[in-house]
Amino acid sequence: MRRRRPAGEFELIDAFTRALPLRGEGVVLGPGDDAAILRPPPGEELVATVDAVEEGVHFDGRFRPEDVGWKALAVNLSDLAAMGARPLWALVALGVPAGTTSARLAGVARGLGACARRFGIAVAGGNVTRAPGLSVTVTVVGSAPRGRALRREGARPGDAVLVSGTLGEAALGLEPGAPSSLARRQRRPAPRLALGRALLGLASAAIDVSDGLVQDLGHLCAASRVGASVRLAELPLSPAYRRRTAGREDPWQAALSGGEDYELCVTVPAAKVPAALRAARAAGVPLAVVGTVTRARGVQVARPDGGHHPVTRGHDHLAAVRKLARRPARRRRAQRALKGS
Amino acid sequence: MRRRRPAGEFELIDAFTRALPLRGEGVVLGPGDDAAILRPPPGEELVATVDAVEEGVHFDGRFRPEDVGWKALAVNLSDLAAMGARPLWALVALGVPAGTTSARLAGVARGLGACARRFGIAVAGGNVTRAPGLSVTVTVVGSAPRGRALRREGARPGDAVLVSGTLGEAALGLEPGAPSSLARRQRRPAPRLALGRALLGLASAAIDVSDGLVQDLGHLCAASRVGASVRLAELPLSPAYRRRTAGREDPWQAALSGGEDYELCVTVPAAKVPAALRAARAAGVPLAVVGTVTRARGVQVARPDGGHHPVTRGHDHLAAVRKLARRPARRRRAQRALKGS
Repeated sequence: MRRRRPAGEFELIDAFTRALPLRGEGVVLGPGDDAAILRPPPGEELVATVDAVEEGVHFDGRFRPEDVGWKALAVNLSDLAAMGARPLWALVALGVPAGTTSARLAGVARGLGACARRFGIAVAGGNVTRAPGLSVTVTVVGSAPRGRALRREGARPGDAVLVSGTLGEAALGLEPGAPSSLARRQRRPAPRLALGRALLGLASAAIDVSDGLVQDLGHLCAASRVGASVRLAELPLSPAYRRRTAGREDPWQAALSGGEDYELCVTVPAAKVPAALRAARAAGVPLAVVGTVTRARGVQVARPDGGHHPVTRGHDHLAAVRKLARRPARRRRAQRALKGS
Repeated sequence: MRRRRPAGEFELIDAFTRALPLRGEGVVLGPGDDAAILRPPPGEELVATVDAVEEGVHFDGRFRPEDVGWKALAVNLSDLAAMGARPLWALVALGVPAGTTSARLAGVARGLGACARRFGIAVAGGNVTRAPGLSVTVTVVGSAPRGRALRREGARPGDAVLVSGTLGEAALGLEPGAPSSLARRQRRPAPRLALGRALLGLASAAIDVSDGLVQDLGHLCAASRVGASVRLAELPLSPAYRRRTAGREDPWQAALSGGEDYELCVTVPAAKVPAALRAARAAGVPLAVVGTVTRARGVQVARPDGGHHPVTRGHDHLAAVRKLARRPARRRRAQRALKGS
């Protein structure tokens, strides 16, 4: 396939690349060759993930280009936080619609670059191609001590369920007239990298909260073959959240299932909860016990009066893009097929 | 940002994932968690690249879904081939327009999976998100012995210029009525991984030919601060190419600048040329000396009568997406800026 090269293509690439930190730990050869050369930390395992943000799906005109760039990287770093990994390098694939200005791309790069610098990683490579809408696909590679990365699997009945920071603000931040503090949670999520690393050896399982606490805790429970009970009264809600939702029929909806919090939800064996709370304080991140892992499957939300709070999903969303994953039956079938190949 | 989740989203993901090889060397944890856990080969450096193929830009209705999947991975593997690296893992970010059928995604996955199996790599992770058009963004991570990966930099005046396989067929394969052998070169490129590895320690510089020989050799020469002279009479052209272009005003145009050959262009010190040719024979890949590295900058094409053949670009194309790169002046400025930050 061919197309005429647009005038200024290299200017676009240049505008994008200029604002990025291209060098960093382990970067032997950065952008400019056929591939990057990277030196992995000895004795560590790599932890790698990819996520995309697409115009019209994950962002719109309310996002400044800087927000788009920040968020495209931050959602990936949140995945690494949930593994307890240290991020090292990003590769960025940029899809650019015709007519995109250098100024817009430079804005995306400034946001992405600011996030990269904030969390100490290098953009080691990438590419730019035409696309129908602006899209930023980021691959992040980091590392964790061998055999110690956190996973969704590992929660045991009786473990405590803990959540970092506060919930629901990002979802409220999309509402018309939302205060800027809530809008900022939507546009500039802060991945909990320091907390994730601090919980290595303490958490039995972990996931980042991108689809809402109930859904993501549900993923963790499914992977661990357990369930969980969450206590409504212990959800960490900010004053801004409480003000915004006061008087609503279900003021907990955004906190339970609003999504895009990019907080961590972890399970911790009861005996290690004090150590986990100390580790969070040392990392400067709020961490709250919100529930308990149960033998019974599914995630239940308990009201203070002992009844179950029905969980409604206000909106589904795909901002936290779907990971490639297999349902168990299919996975087994595939493994059989692979063995035969 | 939110949107209603389309019915059957998990079915789409499942249709895509089912055809992929999810396990392989060094895959500690594959798809299904927040990130993949990967064990790098001890003593090796990582080599990583990302490329995207976009509907309407890099493929259209002439491509079967299987072709799209194959090519999305193959173009990345070609980058690793040019580094002399061994590919290990792919991460796949899939952009899916509304209304996409499971059958189409399954086709893409079959092609991608076939390419992954052919070259022995695992799809260790990925995601699926809505997008305006179908897009497949693939990150490939491989490895090479520490300090030995090939680069664009390193060619010296007097080195021979060599090219693998045959040139120009992929470009001809886009023409209406092209024979299927040419169309196949366009749709199913075969990355020269075995050759790239065989040339470690022999080639002084390397690049893959994605934009056409003259342009890519130009990139190699620019990175090496040299020039090159290519001998028209020695371009490796297939019988199908010669038949197709017989009688054209410039029968060499597609071979010199058609693009998407995904062959390797390497420079080799004169004393090592016999060893390079033997290594290529052992790898089962044709390799031809086509020119010489010169002190004078730029790439010249020499006719048998000693004159210069003017190089015309029939079409520019972006099928070989642009790497993030910096023009030298800007790169120096950025390095200064980085030092100051």
